[in-house]
Amino acid sequence: MNADARLIQAAADLGYSFDGELRVGGDYVPLVRDDQVVYVSGQVPRVGDSLVVTGRVGDDVGLEQAQRAAQVCAIRALVLLQRELGSLDEVRQILRITVYVQSAAQFTQHSEVADAASQLLHRVLERAGTHTRTSVGVFQLPKNASVELDLIASVRR
Amino acid sequence: MNADARLIQAAADLGYSFDGELRVGGDYVPLVRDDQVVYVSGQVPRVGDSLVVTGRVGDDVGLEQAQRAAQVCAIRALVLLQRELGSLDEVRQILRITVYVQSAAQFTQHSEVADAASQLLHRVLERAGTHTRTSVGVFQLPKNASVELDLIASVRR
Amino acid sequence: MNADARLIQAAADLGYSFDGELRVGGDYVPLVRDDQVVYVSGQVPRVGDSLVVTGRVGDDVGLEQAQRAAQVCAIRALVLLQRELGSLDEVRQILRITVYVQSAAQFTQHSEVADAASQLLHRVLERAGTHTRTSVGVFQLPKNASVELDLIASVRR
Repeated sequence: MNADARLIQAAADLGYSFDGELRVGGDYVPLVRDDQVVYVSGQVPRVGDSLVVTGRVGDDVGLEQAQRAAQVCAIRALVLLQRELGSLDEVRQILRITVYVQSAAQFTQHSEVADAASQLLHRVLERAGTHTRTSVGVFQLPKNASVELDLIASVRR
Repeated sequence: MNADARLIQAAADLGYSFDGELRVGGDYVPLVRDDQVVYVSGQVPRVGDSLVVTGRVGDDVGLEQAQRAAQVCAIRALVLLQRELGSLDEVRQILRITVYVQSAAQFTQHSEVADAASQLLHRVLERAGTHTRTSVGVFQLPKNASVELDLIASVRR
Repeated sequence: MNADARLIQAAADLGYSFDGELRVGGDYVPLVRDDQVVYVSGQVPRVGDSLVVTGRVGDDVGLEQAQRAAQVCAIRALVLLQRELGSLDEVRQILRITVYVQSAAQFTQHSEVADAASQLLHRVLERAGTHTRTSVGVFQLPKNASVELDLIASVRR
């Protein structure tokens, strides 16, 4: 099973479909490639036209729902990479992910939220999914999203 | 009209002058170039010695003022690129902008704020202004700035 | 005295030891190298198994303690670079640091906190420590850390 098949499996396990256009929430593009490096815009947990997890984590939203949000963000980023590159097997390495969690004042389990995205990257990309990470708790996110994730990846030559 | 002339026009439309030194707010440099990639430090809406838009967006500061702040940040970044490269026509592509908005608890229009910066990049750089973007709502910013923006760009060989 | 000796001196002045494994707080790696560019994961002020500065800056935590936290984060990033590269003399340039400060609502001295990290990079790496910087005030950080810092560096060919 290659990385593309593993992506289909991961999306199915999550119970969402990511067919069709992945909507962008503003006047920018979802992905830019510069030689061997690809930048993916910040992804919120949007499926089709609507966000599937919104609200403040640790208050309106529990840890499990936030982890689900992080997984949706990560799958969106992978779908964008796959469409750009033809196949996820072209990803050499995920260089950096940044995970922004809309946090309650006392919520400190940002790493546990981000781990759900990290594990999904490892599952789908295997060794190419190894990455550096920064997780922070922010005050708000676009469209009241609970989680936002962006990434930088390198591509096989 | 080349990109440099369009930058002058965009700054004039905003009603501010960006002549002279662009002050940096700490012990770092405004720009670092590494071969074909340029990193620009986080820009706040400073004109001369003072910030022109401060306070919490969605509370003290309305959407239009926040968009104006985002435009000032974007112009500062472009002025820095122009001074480094001699001309903005040397910019190959804006790879990534990150837009931090000092948000009220319920403010969710971060994308609308960031769009003002994105549109300015498109206007001045045309196709080279196409970029990926991450927008988040943060709790505070240096000097009580309403918006902060940083970017990464690639340069023509 | 080379950069490695200056790092030992800087750590000693801070009064902490950074021998042994630098623990990572989740399912990711501390550092990824992609040709001449190295990404270092977000570092919190952890020494051994525990965080040495936690809480909200401008409220529970004063400026000096926050600066100390920023220095610990910077030293951790340098130790990781040194272990990867064999010697800090292999660092060509710090391209970007991002400093996240867990802020009180009215705290605006993020640049003063980040300056402590910037000065440490200059002290240890001298000219190679020149960098771009983004500082923001966030609502929370993993494990209630007061400061988190990540960086991107280029390496000598």
